Amino acid sequence: MDCRTSSSLNEVRLGKEKFGGETHVYSVAYADSEIDDVISHANKVIFNSVNQLECFGAKATHLPIGLRVNLGVSHSYFDLADPARPSSRLEEIDLTRIESVMDRISGFMLHCNCENGSVAAFSVLLDRIEIRLSGLLAWLDWVSLGGGIAFTKDGYPIDQLAVRLRACADKFGVQIYLELGDIVIIDTTALEVSVLDIVENSKAVAIVDSAVEAHMLDLLVYRESAAIAPNSRPHSYFIAGKSCLAGDVFGEFSFAKPLVIGDRISLLNAGSAFLNMSVLQACLETGAGLYRHSHSRRARQDLRDAALVWQLRRWQRGIISISSPASISSMSMRAAVGAISPPILIPKSISANSPARCGAGRTASEPPTPCLKSV
Amino acid sequence: MDCRTSSSLNEVRLGKEKFGGETHVYSVAYADSEIDDVISHANKVIFNSVNQLECFGAKATHLPIGLRVNLGVSHSYFDLADPARPSSRLEEIDLTRIESVMDRISGFMLHCNCENGSVAAFSVLLDRIEIRLSGLLAWLDWVSLGGGIAFTKDGYPIDQLAVRLRACADKFGVQIYLELGDIVIIDTTALEVSVLDIVENSKAVAIVDSAVEAHMLDLLVYRESAAIAPNSRPHSYFIAGKSCLAGDVFGEFSFAKPLVIGDRISLLNAGSAFLNMSVLQACLETGAGLYRHSHSRRARQDLRDAALVWQLRRWQRGIISISSPASISSMSMRAAVGAISPPILIPKSISANSPARCGAGRTASEPPTPCLKSV
Repeated sequence: MDCRTSSSLNEVRLGKEKFGGETHVYSVAYADSEIDDVISHANKVIFNSVNQLECFGAKATHLPIGLRVNLGVSHSYFDLADPARPSSRLEEIDLTRIESVMDRISGFMLHCNCENGSVAAFSVLLDRIEIRLSGLLAWLDWVSLGGGIAFTKDGYPIDQLAVRLRACADKFGVQIYLELGDIVIIDTTALEVSVLDIVENSKAVAIVDSAVEAHMLDLLVYRESAAIAPNSRPHSYFIAGKSCLAGDVFGEFSFAKPLVIGDRISLLNAGSAFLNMSVLQACLETGAGLYRHSHSRRARQDLRDAALVWQLRRWQRGIISISSPASISSMSMRAAVGAISPPILIPKSISANSPARCGAGRTASEPPTPCLKSV
Repeated sequence: MDCRTSSSLNEVRLGKEKFGGETHVYSVAYADSEIDDVISHANKVIFNSVNQLECFGAKATHLPIGLRVNLGVSHSYFDLADPARPSSRLEEIDLTRIESVMDRISGFMLHCNCENGSVAAFSVLLDRIEIRLSGLLAWLDWVSLGGGIAFTKDGYPIDQLAVRLRACADKFGVQIYLELGDIVIIDTTALEVSVLDIVENSKAVAIVDSAVEAHMLDLLVYRESAAIAPNSRPHSYFIAGKSCLAGDVFGEFSFAKPLVIGDRISLLNAGSAFLNMSVLQACLETGAGLYRHSHSRRARQDLRDAALVWQLRRWQRGIISISSPASISSMSMRAAVGAISPPILIPKSISANSPARCGAGRTASEPPTPCLKSV
């Protein structure tokens, strides 16, 4: 791991102390009480607003300083995750103020994508950024384009992405960073559950030994369904958890045979629920630096480590090469694997076809048209 | 604490070992691997379905056995929390099957209420239960009517509730249990935050040193707003957290003066987010046994303990009497208070007026009409 980023004091400290190498830090708002400590662990410091830059920038003059910029453009299926949502607090929007601090910064962060699986859509967004900011980009040394570019999906034209990134980097003379986000574990991880009871209430409901809130909380927050594959069989069931929450339902799925108590079900693509809070980062050789933008939840660290290991294995098998995978020792990999707690998380076979999905939104194989906001 | 309930192995064990006294256990679905251990810690065992009773009932014949029953009636503002939602897996719905096992059970659990602040609405529900189940209730020794009855709210006619419960208990010769739920901390707790930055993006947004996902996750899950009081002043702001989530927004509130960096804001009624996962239980002297139905999240235990202490103090000041408050020693109270972590949680003054609320749903002072399903 060559490069990582973070969004809080403890994360940047973890990144620096545990992983070493280049460590970025960004925060929606730094506090007086933490800024000195934050800066002491960072190689680049990114501010969310000119206000914050003016408050704390003088403390970081020995480092490259960046500013998060909001052009009101985005590609996101979820209002909750859309940095360009109405009255978004993320990123500075005032170009006049941005111009006034250009002599104090060497980079921009523009986080516009969420689950963007289309290189064409990404390229359109980047076109708009280049047009709107061309006069400023040429001043800079680096640009972070954030996460949300789903280039690990089967069939994604990653070479086209690399070409487009290289063109932008060459045009403006900047180093481009991307954040990995949850793309590092797309289709790598399943939540394995077993049927404990089957009840009938208008429809058949199979109650399993897990719970949405405990293990796939994002389904509740984003109002989504889990996924199984295949999912077009004759016997249909709601798959529901064993917590007391009435809405603890993973989704409605269909099976080849009637379910019986003890049957095991694989709920696909469960890794993002764990990785969502992780500190996983990596740099890839695609003409751009890439890293994982991290969030905080210590309790999920074991599972995150496991997800990291699975993805490293996937990468090592040739899907994407990592510049320095050896920087995580095989001993720490084994330790991470050993730390997995029940319910069992298993990696999906790399050669498996992309699974069929159910429900709306982020896990759907044909997601709804995202909002691509005009400049 | 005389009485408690639980919904998992570790909870029933905690209740038995830490609190002692009468301990109930209920689970949406027990597993083969846990049932013996569960029963060993319980004084009453409640099954969610006749299936589960038939699987495991023989192991618990030395104990009172209960069955959760679903009459398709409920009072809930939230589909997510409504046990009578379509295809609910909670509770046995087949009256013929229920009748077939009456000789093996001594109690029913009927969990029909969620944030029901109306004694009249509760009474209508209980009327329906009495009519539908009259032939069965007379066979039983006890009935748990679950939680969700908001009798700690200012002005709630608790005497009317007690009379209604007593009438039911006398009519059928049953001991009635209620679960306390989050009513133990209504209006007791605030999340104290400080303004770190103020940005303008169509509207003014104050970024504070907290995050919805970290400290008031229920707002995301239930799509609600936090609350402040008063909230009808001239200066309006979105109050947003410092996590990277675009939708990390507590709500839109108004203030008497323009906010400045460093201002402190009290987000009201924050306790339920912590208590939601707690194991707090108590028995009250209202003619019915009352207990807390617990969920699991160890990480919130400190805050739950704090919430317990605040509520105990409130009760001790005379709002509601506790049958045996001395069973929590003053030493354990002090320990719980000492365990509070930042952000600061403070008890609201008992004499304060009921605060103004914003947003729809559970924190509103005049909530929307709930769905009262017909029998």
